[in-house]
Amino acid sequence: MIIESVDVFAFALPHVRDIGDGSQDMVLVRVRAGGHTGWGECEAAPLPTLATMVAPMSHSACHGVLDSVLGHPLDDVADIARLSRRVAERGLDLLQTPHAWSGVEIALWDLLGKARSEPAWVLRGAAANNARRPYASQLFGDDPQTTLERARGVAAAGFRAAKFGWGPYGRGSVAEDAEQVAAAREGLGPQIDLLVDAGTVWDDDVDAAAARLPALERAGVVWLEEPFVGGAVWAYAALARRSNRVRLAGGEGAHNAHVARQLIDHGGLGFVQIDTGRIGGIGAASQVAGYASSRGVTFVNHTFTSHLALAASLVPYADHPAGLLCEFPVSASPLAEGVTRTPLTLDREGMLRLPDGPGLGLDLDLDAVRPYLQEVEIVVNGQCLYRTPELAQ
Amino acid sequence: MIIESVDVFAFALPHVRDIGDGSQDMVLVRVRAGGHTGWGECEAAPLPTLATMVAPMSHSACHGVLDSVLGHPLDDVADIARLSRRVAERGLDLLQTPHAWSGVEIALWDLLGKARSEPAWVLRGAAANNARRPYASQLFGDDPQTTLERARGVAAAGFRAAKFGWGPYGRGSVAEDAEQVAAAREGLGPQIDLLVDAGTVWDDDVDAAAARLPALERAGVVWLEEPFVGGAVWAYAALARRSNRVRLAGGEGAHNAHVARQLIDHGGLGFVQIDTGRIGGIGAASQVAGYASSRGVTFVNHTFTSHLALAASLVPYADHPAGLLCEFPVSASPLAEGVTRTPLTLDREGMLRLPDGPGLGLDLDLDAVRPYLQEVEIVVNGQCLYRTPELAQ
Repeated sequence: MIIESVDVFAFALPHVRDIGDGSQDMVLVRVRAGGHTGWGECEAAPLPTLATMVAPMSHSACHGVLDSVLGHPLDDVADIARLSRRVAERGLDLLQTPHAWSGVEIALWDLLGKARSEPAWVLRGAAANNARRPYASQLFGDDPQTTLERARGVAAAGFRAAKFGWGPYGRGSVAEDAEQVAAAREGLGPQIDLLVDAGTVWDDDVDAAAARLPALERAGVVWLEEPFVGGAVWAYAALARRSNRVRLAGGEGAHNAHVARQLIDHGGLGFVQIDTGRIGGIGAASQVAGYASSRGVTFVNHTFTSHLALAASLVPYADHPAGLLCEFPVSASPLAEGVTRTPLTLDREGMLRLPDGPGLGLDLDLDAVRPYLQEVEIVVNGQCLYRTPELAQ
Repeated sequence: MIIESVDVFAFALPHVRDIGDGSQDMVLVRVRAGGHTGWGECEAAPLPTLATMVAPMSHSACHGVLDSVLGHPLDDVADIARLSRRVAERGLDLLQTPHAWSGVEIALWDLLGKARSEPAWVLRGAAANNARRPYASQLFGDDPQTTLERARGVAAAGFRAAKFGWGPYGRGSVAEDAEQVAAAREGLGPQIDLLVDAGTVWDDDVDAAAARLPALERAGVVWLEEPFVGGAVWAYAALARRSNRVRLAGGEGAHNAHVARQLIDHGGLGFVQIDTGRIGGIGAASQVAGYASSRGVTFVNHTFTSHLALAASLVPYADHPAGLLCEFPVSASPLAEGVTRTPLTLDREGMLRLPDGPGLGLDLDLDAVRPYLQEVEIVVNGQCLYRTPELAQ
């Protein structure tokens, strides 16, 4: 097959709020080749991502993404890996490249799977599609009472693990943060795993993070996620040395496998969290999954948007041991929830597996998200480089 | 003063070639506050950078750059640092942010210096403006004979150090690469320092890079630059262990101070090369300069474009010891060479210092670059988010 077209679509809610909810807008990529269509999602700011797709060449290491992809062959997984290397090399100096490429790469897996009638995890060479234990991923409430109610809701819904993050956490006092964590634990009861996400709030301030550890230990928190920005590997390492039972989790911002490897090698992580929609797709995420295993660090997906993104994010560790955690967005926007006609569902034990359909195994509901489609036009010197294409399968 | 306006301009040569010459296009930023105007340059792909400046908010950690800057106070260097933190926090998930912010940040230093009638290096708190030994930065020729002639030209021009890079280097055989390096040495003669830039050609293949070390050692090369992509810190460390006298240099791709710190802490670098136009501006680069000093790694600027970028890139280490190397572009495009009316010049000993004028101390020649101005328009849902502003002081 030859990659005939790559079309990119931006979506957004009518009113995007200034909160830590990454499901308020969305970038979808549609690839066509050999009579088949694949879909992928970028976890990325839409407008800069569109511009990165169509950017005019600046020099040999600074090409737009589509320029490196269109017209190339797509017959097996090695072709996807080859294109990933090509895009990385020709996009070296265009920082946004991995965020944009991720959606294309995922769409290539979906397309190739459909052409072969095989699920993406089989294409990837995974020997098994093991069950994951989904944790409900939610924002802290503005006050402990709201957090308590959200935690009760999660417990009532049958989840066996839950994560609370962002919102006020880390922005007030140590005591206020402790109350939030205690409220989450109270709402969940003693049996449900509790995870806490600080959303990089302490930047690289190790003492500020360490001050929260006693409350986290008391609540039996499994991991503290992103106390620091992802690049502050030394700060992760320093905090890991000061923690008893609470493990550190991080890596969602990793935009290539090398960045994730730094955190694994030098950051003292217990869990490395990878977003396939940012790191360069399923191939790059799978590299990290393999490396993490070899170093005794547990791989976990990062997903806060749609079930299309969720499915792509589970492929890289489909064959890791059964029962490992996975992130499962439970309060995503109508946009992110609407895009899949056949969302991933939990089995009666509350566990999650990838579907067995070809590619990512999902049907998209384009009519459901059409109201959110953004009409974008980018013109340079009178030439239209991008105009929102027709939204269709 | 209040930041009243931030305007961004993209430029490009009429015919951009697919070679490793980063001076073929350019992004300039103009900031106005309190009746003063400052200019900065992003070392970045123009179209994605424009889009990053004006991107609609995706969520609380994904704002466009200008949204975080306009209307904020600018009265001292602490205000610039505060804005840097604000932009980083609110742009955490917009990967292109540091490339875009760099140009704004540099313009803020230029503006503040003009308002205070002080050079940027004085504002930065540097106790001295020490002489730098500029190395002529050039591409390898397509064949050794061309490289030889270029090296003779550099020697005749009086440079005391020269760097050759990119072009065919690393893409052919070990023997061909050795001929290129020998030609450069022959053209320079025995006295001039020779540096070699592999332009990340070996990705993370340590053996491929190590195979070139004997020829580099024979030619007395001071440093081998970017054998690998910047993220492959472990590969840098492995190669450093296999080298005798040739030191490793890298870091130009660092998009924040944390990334550069990883290379310093774990990469075995002899030289860390920072581009103020990528890393987030003069503040972030100055952090790296200070940290590198404390760890015995030599800081060097990375600059392959204009003298506006060059001046900004020298500020972070103005007070490091006299005689240290600095990159000096000698065959930049007419665009990059045209933008400054008063380029930085070498003294009779062939050394370079920052000018003593306020801010970055340079006069721009906007008429010289006007023919290269790109007319760009970005429209979302019928609303124009960006249109090329009027190019004026």
